[in-house]
Order: sequence, then C-alpha cells, then structure tokens
Amino acid sequence: MEVMQMKRAIGVLDSGVGGLTVVKELMRQLPKEEIVYIGDTERCPYGPRPHDEIEAYTWELIEFLLKKDVKMIVIACNTATAVVLKEARKRLDIPVIGVIDPGARAAVKGTRNKHIGVIGTKMTIESGSYEKALRHVAGEVDVYSLACPPFVPLVEAGEVSGERVRQVVEETLRPLQPSEMDTLILGCTHYPLLAPVIQDVVGPDVHLISSGDETALEVAAMLDYQELENGLDAVPEHAFYATGDIELFDRLASEWLGRPVHAEKVEVTGIA
Amino acid sequence: MEVMQMKRAIGVLDSGVGGLTVVKELMRQLPKEEIVYIGDTERCPYGPRPHDEIEAYTWELIEFLLKKDVKMIVIACNTATAVVLKEARKRLDIPVIGVIDPGARAAVKGTRNKHIGVIGTKMTIESGSYEKALRHVAGEVDVYSLACPPFVPLVEAGEVSGERVRQVVEETLRPLQPSEMDTLILGCTHYPLLAPVIQDVVGPDVHLISSGDETALEVAAMLDYQELENGLDAVPEHAFYATGDIELFDRLASEWLGRPVHAEKVEVTGIA
Repeated sequence: MEVMQMKRAIGVLDSGVGGLTVVKELMRQLPKEEIVYIGDTERCPYGPRPHDEIEAYTWELIEFLLKKDVKMIVIACNTATAVVLKEARKRLDIPVIGVIDPGARAAVKGTRNKHIGVIGTKMTIESGSYEKALRHVAGEVDVYSLACPPFVPLVEAGEVSGERVRQVVEETLRPLQPSEMDTLILGCTHYPLLAPVIQDVVGPDVHLISSGDETALEVAAMLDYQELENGLDAVPEHAFYATGDIELFDRLASEWLGRPVHAEKVEVTGIA
Repeated sequence: MEVMQMKRAIGVLDSGVGGLTVVKELMRQLPKEEIVYIGDTERCPYGPRPHDEIEAYTWELIEFLLKKDVKMIVIACNTATAVVLKEARKRLDIPVIGVIDPGARAAVKGTRNKHIGVIGTKMTIESGSYEKALRHVAGEVDVYSLACPPFVPLVEAGEVSGERVRQVVEETLRPLQPSEMDTLILGCTHYPLLAPVIQDVVGPDVHLISSGDETALEVAAMLDYQELENGLDAVPEHAFYATGDIELFDRLASEWLGRPVHAEKVEVTGIA
C-alpha cells in the first residue's frame, strides 16, 4: 500500500456511448484522474443479447482495458454490471466498480419513505438487479420498476429536450404515476441526458438518482481507500476508443462532455 | 473473499455522543447491520487536547472495538479522523472509515460552482483537514472555513431549536455571509442536529452536507466491496458503551436515535 501508483488511468467500459455520463461525472469529481474509455458501439445494444454473449463481449472490453494498464475498471453499463461484476471482482486484482449498487445505495440514502422507483432498459428491469440490490441493502422497500424502451433511441439521436421528447417521457412514465415514490433511480447510463425532462414530468418532490454521479463518488472513495489516487496536478490526458462509427461517437462525446473528443477505432473481438 | 463474515458488527467510535448522528444514518441505510458504539464521554472533548493524547485515546477506543471482534471501524469524530485514520488503515487488517473524506467527496460531487463552506470545531477548522481533502480530490476549489465553538455546547445541552438557538446560529455563521458557496459541509458530527436551523439561516440554495449521511454511504460501499455485509434478516442487536455519565448518554442517545438505548459504562484507559 506504500507504493503510490502515479498516472495510471481509470478504465471505463460501456456497450456504447451511455457510459460517457459516468465519464462526465468522473471528470468533474476527479479532475486529476486520467480516463481510458472503451465503447462497444459496433455491438451495442447489449440489452437484448443472450447472457453468454454479454459475458464474452464484456470480458473483451475488460481485456482491452487491462492491456492499457488501468488501475481500476468501471463497468459503466447496467447490463454488463448485472452479468459480469461479481466474477470480474473475483478474477481481477484491481478494483472493479459497477453502476447498479452505487445507484441503489444512493436511493436508500436519499429516500425518506422507502418508496423507490427504478427506470431502465427492458433487460435491466427484467433482471431485477436494482430490486435485488435495494432489498439486499435495505430490506423492506417498495420498488416501482418500469422499462422505458423509447428513451435510449431518443438519446442516441441527440434528442433530449423539446415538446416531442416531453410527450414521449410523459407517456412512458405514466404507469409510475400516481405513486408514493420519493426517489427515482435513472437505471441506465443514457437517462441522465433526459433528467431535466424526467424531473419536470415526475415533479420537484421526487429525488432523481443518477448512477453516473453515484458511481463517480464510489470510485473516488475506492481510489482513496486503495491509495490509488493520482497525486499529480498535471492536466490529465484522456483516451477514448470505440468499436463502431467513430464520427458519430466523436460528435456525441464532444457534445456531452463539452470538450473535443477524438476517439480511436479499435477491434476487440477475440481479444479475451 | 469467499468466506462470508456473518453477524460481525460495525464498530463506531467517537469522543462522545456526536458520533451517534453517524450511527443513526448507519441504522437507516444499513438496517441489517449490527453496531457496537463506544463514546469516550469521560474524556470528551478531544478537540483541545494535544496530538499525542488524541492519538493515544483514539487507539484505546480502537482496541476496545477490536476486542468486540468488529469487522470494520468507523471513526465518527473529525478530530480523531484527522489524527489517526491514516495510521489505523496501515495497522489494522479490517477496513477503517473516517468522516472527513466522505464529507469532502460529497461536497465535490454536490457543488456546481466550486465554492464550498466548511464549519466545524476550532480544532477541525485549524487542522485544515477539509481544505486538504477538498483540494486533494478536486484541485481548485474556493473553501470558506469557519469554526463554530457555540454549536457543540448547544447540542450537548439538547438545545437544537427555538429562537435563542436561531440567534446563536445566525450570529455564529455571519462571517460566512454573503458568500458564493453553494455547498456547506457540517464538519462536526454534532451539527446535523442543528441542520434545520442552519439551513434556515444560510437559505435554501445552499446544499448542506452531513458527514454522517455520507460516511454511512461509504460504509455501505465498503461492506459490499469487501463482501462483509450481514446476510441475515434478523433484527440486529446494537451495543452501546460510554466511559462517562451513562444516564446522560442514554437520555441523549435514546432521544436522537428514536429508540431506547441502555449503554454500559466501561473503562478504556490503558487498554491499548
């Protein structure tokens, strides 16, 4: 624990671009840390794929990040977290952080009445991962789960505001209302882009939990605990990789992160 | 990592009763976990004591908790955290969590304008621990620090609302205003008892960070990461110990925790 691990990056993986919401929070909360991001845009979405395929693909992304000598891996994808986190923690000798538990814990911390809503992709909701995580920590909680299939396509198309978006969000979230929930988990890394509209629809009394924010907080705690923080004051140089269309990735990433992103196209198939 | 550590308690130590605000949050966020609490009420406050004495006293509390076979130690006292945390992490083979870093990280997460206020005891403010922690994580931040000596006596006397309390809080916090801070760290485990009054004085736009809430969140994350969570659904049996006046301790603890507390008087001098 005495050796300071200087200037090794945090590895972040996602099935596509959604994990960039986690990256944005990491950059804000940990401005001294370097990030290596790999988005499997070519094979996105993971959600509808069979378990074994998700597992194999995620391990390829992990292997890619390990070759970059990262000091920690953040699985910034709900589906990949549900399938691989536990095994990855067992097999790797660096810390591995997923997005589900930090969101669940923040919801337990935030709720006053133990009525918690969760929205996510069909796969995430059907897996029951958030319900399990919430009950694991807090025991008795009332969980209202809802799959929101229209949200990811909206975000991928860059549509995150305006009347049409509001209508879609309102209609999609209708089954959640009226409910007693005082806390709503955005259980998909794409959804924070829609947070202003979602907040408007559910009303100001419902506290939104963004897994990106919470995951970044746990990354900070884990870096501190494991004494893996970057001590340097230099401006970090981040690196972005994607397996699919680079122009689209660069456009979305630059817009969301508010800084120019030039990703490199890579091949990860068969790497693991 | 395969062996599940069932039913071992989380050890919480404090110089007195302030750490009970952390216990309250632990009970709320981690209702399945057992807690062993030791408050050194006989030798409280630690703040004005010399460094070596604080160190020796804190190690006696740690030793007391280790004899109770706790699976983790939470140093629920800012002063003791500043003095002993680093060494305790090196020397113990169970996780040790302090209250300063979780509060600092939550402030970095919460702030939008990087203007952060910190209030605490004279000792905590003079130690610069929060400033160091904030800058360590976030680099450039504007920190407004203020010692609030009248607050702990108010809380210890059970005075946490009413016109007189409001006046004292308003007067004490005057040097902080006007400021651009959008986030204020309650850097003393007693202060959450005064949170409603403090919020009223600083206005609704300033986000208050309670180290108790944030510490409990990090405890939850660490238990999960180290696979130390209690898997049992049984109602946990907590245990409270204090070195000083037990009647006073029981009265304050029962009131704050909203459940009857019957502490046991113990001697820790010379234990370490």
